[in-house]
This record gives sequence, C-alpha cells and structure tokens, in this order.
Amino acid sequence: MKVGSQSFRTIWPDPRCKFVQIIDQTQLPFTFKTLHIHSTEQMLRAIKSMQVRGAPLIGAAAAYGLALAMLEDESDAHLLNAAESLKNSRPTAVNLAWAVNRMVAILNETPLNRRNFTAWREAAKIAEEDVAQNQRIGQHGLDLIKSHYQDKTLNILTHCNAGWLATVDYGTALSPIYAAHDAGLKVHVWVDETRPRNQGAALTAWELGQHGVPHTVITDNAGGHLMQQGHLNKNHVDMVIVGADRVTAKGDVCNKIGTYLKALAAHDNQIPFYAAVPSPSIDWTIADYKQIEIEERDSDEVSYIQGLCADGNVQTVRLTPIESKAANPAFDVTPARLVTGIITEKGVFSPAELVNLTLKND
Amino acid sequence: MKVGSQSFRTIWPDPRCKFVQIIDQTQLPFTFKTLHIHSTEQMLRAIKSMQVRGAPLIGAAAAYGLALAMLEDESDAHLLNAAESLKNSRPTAVNLAWAVNRMVAILNETPLNRRNFTAWREAAKIAEEDVAQNQRIGQHGLDLIKSHYQDKTLNILTHCNAGWLATVDYGTALSPIYAAHDAGLKVHVWVDETRPRNQGAALTAWELGQHGVPHTVITDNAGGHLMQQGHLNKNHVDMVIVGADRVTAKGDVCNKIGTYLKALAAHDNQIPFYAAVPSPSIDWTIADYKQIEIEERDSDEVSYIQGLCADGNVQTVRLTPIESKAANPAFDVTPARLVTGIITEKGVFSPAELVNLTLKND
Repeated sequence: MKVGSQSFRTIWPDPRCKFVQIIDQTQLPFTFKTLHIHSTEQMLRAIKSMQVRGAPLIGAAAAYGLALAMLEDESDAHLLNAAESLKNSRPTAVNLAWAVNRMVAILNETPLNRRNFTAWREAAKIAEEDVAQNQRIGQHGLDLIKSHYQDKTLNILTHCNAGWLATVDYGTALSPIYAAHDAGLKVHVWVDETRPRNQGAALTAWELGQHGVPHTVITDNAGGHLMQQGHLNKNHVDMVIVGADRVTAKGDVCNKIGTYLKALAAHDNQIPFYAAVPSPSIDWTIADYKQIEIEERDSDEVSYIQGLCADGNVQTVRLTPIESKAANPAFDVTPARLVTGIITEKGVFSPAELVNLTLKND
Repeated sequence: MKVGSQSFRTIWPDPRCKFVQIIDQTQLPFTFKTLHIHSTEQMLRAIKSMQVRGAPLIGAAAAYGLALAMLEDESDAHLLNAAESLKNSRPTAVNLAWAVNRMVAILNETPLNRRNFTAWREAAKIAEEDVAQNQRIGQHGLDLIKSHYQDKTLNILTHCNAGWLATVDYGTALSPIYAAHDAGLKVHVWVDETRPRNQGAALTAWELGQHGVPHTVITDNAGGHLMQQGHLNKNHVDMVIVGADRVTAKGDVCNKIGTYLKALAAHDNQIPFYAAVPSPSIDWTIADYKQIEIEERDSDEVSYIQGLCADGNVQTVRLTPIESKAANPAFDVTPARLVTGIITEKGVFSPAELVNLTLKND
C-alpha cells in the first residue's frame, strides 16, 4: 500500500535472494525506516522485538527466515534448528508454525543442493498467497460493508493493527475498509489505541492516514461508550472489524488483549462484530479455546511507553510508580457466541457455518 | 491516609482561614508536592487542570473556592459570580453543583459581614462529612468483602482512581479495600491504568503502594481476560469495585470512561460489580441516564502522555501520528442491569433496592 506516493510491502526479498528487507515497525509512526535482514538470527530478533509483527506477516517472515537459513547452510541439522527457533519466537499466532511446517515439509523432500533455491521460491509463494488472500478478504468484506451502507458515513471500529502492516500487503481487518474507501464509499474508522504497545495509535492510524482514510484515535476505554450512542448520533459505531491471531473451529476469536471487551459491547448494543482472517489462521485442531496459550509479555510494556518528545526524539517514559508491578497478558479470546461472522478469503461465515465448513480441505 | 510515614488529606485549610492547601495530583506518582491556593481563580484553575480531581474532592474544593471568594469580597454579586464559575468548571460530577448550591443557600441567609466566617466553617463541614461518609462506606464495603472472603487472597479489580486522592480522605471504591487490608484480610488489587489520564497507573497504584496494599497495574484491555480465568487460576478476579461521578435513582453508574466495558465483562463471568459512592453522588433528579452530559475533554489527552524520563524529568510525549485526530469522551454510563450493588455510607443496595429508598430524605 501507499507510503507517501510510493507503494510498499512490509517484507520483500532482495532480487538476488541474498537478504530480505522489512519495515521497522517499532519506529512508526514517527520514523519510516527499512532494514536489511541478512541471517536467521536477525530475523528471529526482528520477530521477537516486533519489528515485524501481525500473525500473517510473522508467517511470511518466518518463511524468509528459513530461506536465510538455507542460504547459510542447507543441512538437515541447520534446517531443523532454524525451524525450531523460529517456531518458538512467538507462541500465540498459528501462522508462524503453519509457515515453518510448510517450509520444512517441502525442504525435507528437496535435495540439499536445491534447498536454498526452493526455500526462497517457497517463501515468495507464501508471501504472494498472503497478498492474494488479503485482497479476497477485502472483496468479501466490501460486500459486507455495502450491505450495511446507507449513503452516509459508515463508522467502523477496529482494535490493534490488522492492516497491511500486519500482513505482507492489504491487511485483514483493514482490507475491506481500503476496498470500500477505494470504491468511493464514505467510511470512517474508530481506531482503538490498543495498549500496551499502542499498535492502533501508532500503526493503524499511520497506515490509514497514509492511504487517506478518515479515522479518529480513541482510548481502549472509549469504544463501549461510542457503541451505546444511537445511530442518530454522529459518534456511533456501525460495525466492528478486527483481525485475529487464531480462530478456533467453533469460531472463537483469539486476538489482541481487549478484543473481548469490544465484542461484549458490540453484542450489548446489537452492533455486528466481525473478525477478518486468512483461512490458515483458523486452527482446526483446537476444540476448546482454553487450550490456546496466551502469551504473557514483559511487564515493562505496561510500565513504560514510547513517544515523540518536543525535541523530535523518540523516548521511553515510565508511567507507573517505581514500586508497583504490572501484568501483561497479550491476547484474549472472544467466545463464538459474541461473533457475528468470520471474513475469510473464501467468504463470510457465521460461527455456526464455520463448524460445517471444510475450508481446511479445500 | 499515609504518604510515607506522614498522614495527609487531599485538601486542608490554613488554620487562620487565609488560604487552602492541596496535593498537586498532576505531579503524582513521581513527585509529591503540595500547593497553596489563595484565590477562587486559583481554585478554578486547580479544578480545571485536575490538580484536584475526583467527584467528592471537587465538591470540597469548590466549597473552599467559595470560602476564598468570601475572603476576597462578601457581596452577593461576587458570591453568585464565583458560584457560577465553580459550577461550570467541570460538567459531569454532581458533587460540584451540590456543594456549591449548599454553600450559596447558607451564605444567602447570612449577613454580609458574617459570610467569610460562615463560608470557611461550612466548607470545613463539607470536608469533614466527606471523610466520615467515606469511613462508613469502608465499613459497609468491608462487610461485603468479608462475605466474599474464603481465607485466600481476594482479588479486586478497580478502574480509575476512587481512592483517598479522589476524596478528602479514605476514598470511596478503595475505602473498603483499605478497611479490609487494615483488618488483616489478604486483598490484592488489579489496577486498570485508565487511559487517557492514567489515574489508575499514576494515582491508585501510588496510594495503594504508600499504604502497603498489594496491587498489580494492568492495561484497560486486560481486565476482561482476567475475569474469564476461573477461580482456580491465580490471575482471576473475585469482585469489581469502582467509584462513580453520578449514580441515577435507578442505579445506573456514570463513571470514568471504560467502566461500562468492565461491567459487561463482570456480568458475562458472574463476577459481582459494585460502585461505591457517598449518597450526594446519587442524582435523584435523573430519570434517564441519557440526560447526563458526558464531558468531552481535550483530544491532546489521548494524543500525548506524561511519564518519567530516564534523566528523572517528567516529560510529555506524543503517541499518535501528527496528522491523526483523536476523540476523548471522559465518562460512560453502566446501566443498572449490570450493577450488583451500590455501596453507600448508609449500606449496600442493589439497584432495585435503591429505587425504593429515600436516602435523599434521611
């Protein structure tokens, strides 16, 4: 998508397949900076430090991490070692394990001297598939938005960042919004800031702004109140669209911490609540969402925050008393009973329809 | 309550009734600083800038603001002028108008040359009544906590700051918690940071820490997830206690933005949800909570945040892209159907019981 007048993806290979380039998302929204990633080790650090983040993007990044591993050493031992490290770099997103497993399966069947070539080709394929999937999510989501559209500005609330920055391109939750905006529909986005890492305030607001989509940043606390406003109020919410790190076969949505609270408020005010995900994010193996491991991240993410100082430098400041500890669960699960539908590249499905689907076998 | 080893209130008069002292709450939790307030004008600025904040404290501050007005000039014109300015300094809290009206009523019946004396006496009375009320709220809340207590740590979630810093002393929502802690019960508090102004992270965490009450700061997004954990999980929530700026006669609770989301999650997980308020915060004149004016505060509170830099200075940093706008509704309303009970100085009442009460006529 657009950054200023130039088109970018979040990750792309050097044409000679010697390194990978990424956008350093920890520097946004104040500095737009790209990085060269030369090794699996560097890719691991980029994933762990969230220079690349968002479930679909992490999948592509891990695939390129294995391509970099094969550039270093095409042996079985190195492949398995790199695969294990990449799988363990973030615990919650299903795409990461999915992409690594897919790479390992194909590389296991490839002669050693062809592995480097095959790995870069397969990683590129995973990235292209993500882009194509997200474009299709956008088209299915656009039909949905049209069905709610009544010739006045449609207000859509989103949480965290499930935009093009969370994927290779287009995004998941934001893909329908870009499609609607590009189709000339009047859409306005309520952007939850999404503490503790403020991916909404920093990333979603930035990418919507770069693309020219009208939006307003709100605190995570404000969405419920906005949803309580009737449709005659200009500050109302017409629909909620979020991304997801995993969706269970029943339609439970595991997404950024705080999503569950917005789903409760949407349900309480009869506002449709959708999660937009590529089908690899549907984890058909999980029967009970309580099996999903919820990543507990460093409490410093709660105690400190990063922002732009008056002098133009980005600085980290402490928010809590030095003596107070903090807790930082990073995801929560929204039970299927609160979910109106799942927007996938294959169409929009209610949780009940999802159960009967064989998406996994397509 | 205690600050280090010394006892403080949030507001207190000079013994010669020439000025008023307050704790500058905008400097907490990093700097503990008291200010001298010499004029109504200074008190107005202290209220508007939230150097004093919290519905009960604002009431006492407004009363002292009128005492300062009478020190300047005991005329009818000056009284009415000061009363109007004070009433308009913050729109949502009912205590402010209540305290100003009470002061004006008594001063109207007082000869001009006695007004200064009467004003300081009445303001002190309002402050003492607040302290006594909050102590009684603590005792009624303690009984409630005991009824939920099963000889292991009881986890209570609170939102914003309804501690002693929000009142003259003891607090409303935190008064039962202090009473339980002082009675030797094991209590632990989940402290919502409460964006945008972070009164939880900055004030609640600070005052609980000063008093020695175990607590953990969490983002506003995390409470729903914690409530989903069963009682066998150490990270669960046993009850929610919040303060309120207004409670309607039906038991609807108007409190800091985000309270409604926590009430929804508590209801969804069968966790009791209480609001603790002195009875003057019950607005018997409001039939429909949609009549309550919700203060829309400066969007810079969302776009910027204040914290402690590594060099020891408190600095404000920007969180959102320069081009992105923000919205900042400061309160929301939790409908009575989500409220288990209202803890007042007269006892604990369910919304249904509240309707039948004549608290106002006691």
